[in-house]
Amino acid sequence: MLKVPDDQVAGHKAIGGKLGPLADDSGQFYKPLQSDERGSHEVSFYSSLSSNSKIPEHISRFFPKFYGTQLIEASDGSGRQPHLVLQDLNFCRVNPSVMDIKIGSRTWPPEASEEYIKKCLKKDREYSSLALGFRLTGLQIFGSRDLGFWKPENKSWVQSLSSDEVKLLLKKFVSNNASGPLDQKPDCAFASIVYGGSTGILSQLLELKAWFEDQTTYHFYSGSILMMFEKELISNGKGPRPEIRLIDFAHVIEGKGVIDHNFLGGLCSLIKFISEILTTPEDCATDGLLDDHVQRNHIYYENGST
Amino acid sequence: MLKVPDDQVAGHKAIGGKLGPLADDSGQFYKPLQSDERGSHEVSFYSSLSSNSKIPEHISRFFPKFYGTQLIEASDGSGRQPHLVLQDLNFCRVNPSVMDIKIGSRTWPPEASEEYIKKCLKKDREYSSLALGFRLTGLQIFGSRDLGFWKPENKSWVQSLSSDEVKLLLKKFVSNNASGPLDQKPDCAFASIVYGGSTGILSQLLELKAWFEDQTTYHFYSGSILMMFEKELISNGKGPRPEIRLIDFAHVIEGKGVIDHNFLGGLCSLIKFISEILTTPEDCATDGLLDDHVQRNHIYYENGST
Repeated sequence: MLKVPDDQVAGHKAIGGKLGPLADDSGQFYKPLQSDERGSHEVSFYSSLSSNSKIPEHISRFFPKFYGTQLIEASDGSGRQPHLVLQDLNFCRVNPSVMDIKIGSRTWPPEASEEYIKKCLKKDREYSSLALGFRLTGLQIFGSRDLGFWKPENKSWVQSLSSDEVKLLLKKFVSNNASGPLDQKPDCAFASIVYGGSTGILSQLLELKAWFEDQTTYHFYSGSILMMFEKELISNGKGPRPEIRLIDFAHVIEGKGVIDHNFLGGLCSLIKFISEILTTPEDCATDGLLDDHVQRNHIYYENGST
Repeated sequence: MLKVPDDQVAGHKAIGGKLGPLADDSGQFYKPLQSDERGSHEVSFYSSLSSNSKIPEHISRFFPKFYGTQLIEASDGSGRQPHLVLQDLNFCRVNPSVMDIKIGSRTWPPEASEEYIKKCLKKDREYSSLALGFRLTGLQIFGSRDLGFWKPENKSWVQSLSSDEVKLLLKKFVSNNASGPLDQKPDCAFASIVYGGSTGILSQLLELKAWFEDQTTYHFYSGSILMMFEKELISNGKGPRPEIRLIDFAHVIEGKGVIDHNFLGGLCSLIKFISEILTTPEDCATDGLLDDHVQRNHIYYENGST
């Protein structure tokens, strides 16, 4: 039985008769192939990745597993349509906190059409991409089974955060009081076990960075890093399984012997934000109230799985 | 007595009644203040740099020394005009080989005017900036006192090189046969002593990279890295004094707590090119003939200082 994925935080959703990804109960994720060349691009990328023996295992684990393409009933009622069959990244997770971050100050490849460049450049400037080298595109932070998730409601607000606001949300993401009132300072209670440590998110981002400093095969325009962990495991005395994944490859092009300096620059910027949270824990206690821009924007809660 | 600097490889030259930088015989370099806000921007940057105690000494050595501003007779005959007074970077060098590389895939700051962005974006796309994360803007390679310097004549050709052509020129830069026929393979004879080693150019670029991964004070749009060394010292059994310097700060803006991901990405790309020359020395012996694009473009020689 196919259903709307529980933990999708960005992109088009398969609700209200719209086209979007679906998931089954065996851990597979079905992403509709975009009808223009973006669909075939993404299939080509996954195929190339599967057959690329140069990617070391500690890097290939950052990509979702790929099981080919399949015709399935599309969520918009348009009948059987081709879908990418991928690993459902949150299949084995209970109430994961998830953040989707589109990496790169530029989301368009050099060979794109004038019209496409104009459209993307406008967004990159309006949103935080140009300023920060990345932009948040969606997130959910698990509070508790009673409180459910904290999710920003306004998509374009999330994408156009200032540097200080991004820092705040990255702190909130690893805080125990994320579901509290908006003007409460994030306590960063889980920063060291989610971001820090030898298997934490920072460590994984640094592995990815080392690969991007060297690999000249792919340039990832408009791709995202997904960061995930499970707060509930902490209460059970276990590690929160922090993990990153790379997703969204409709605009991957050949590197032609040059590193992906656009993705790498943005990745280094994200790394700096997260490093600062770890190196200045005192900031979590001394932060002031959230500013008006944050307070004006509504959030909603939805119950977590029980 | 002021004169046109000998080893200027890029930018406007003070010849033929045009406005350009001048040098004296005591090691000072006089750069005319651009009349619009770029001039005042560059003065502000140098002043800020001088008073910034956060910049470690191993990084501040990469910037030219700044001695304030001074009214001097401009080279275009327009009378006494304000000039930045800087260290003449090649004052103590004899026949230096010099390469000027504009770093960053984007040469315009986010706050620039629409008109300026349009103009820069067009250049960034036509030249190699967008593809490589940097572009060569000028170079001279010393051959011998008889042969003089190898200098590409065509400025826009140098700026629009492909990835393979840039790799070739970076090899030619450290080759003993750089003044030979254009279809001769570069021998990379000096690669290990100019690019390699603990005081070589790669090592300096890596120090700069580490600083750019951390510093959030300045964003350097349209700034250049100058790479220099002296081939003649090698024949005299000495080290070639390889050095890098950062120059051109008319478009430096405040970092506002974010790293300069645009400069850093381009710098990492340049580092990758130079690393590859060091790690694959066999490519210097096995390269084929230079391609048509290189051969079609004229070069000229001028005699070196004796």
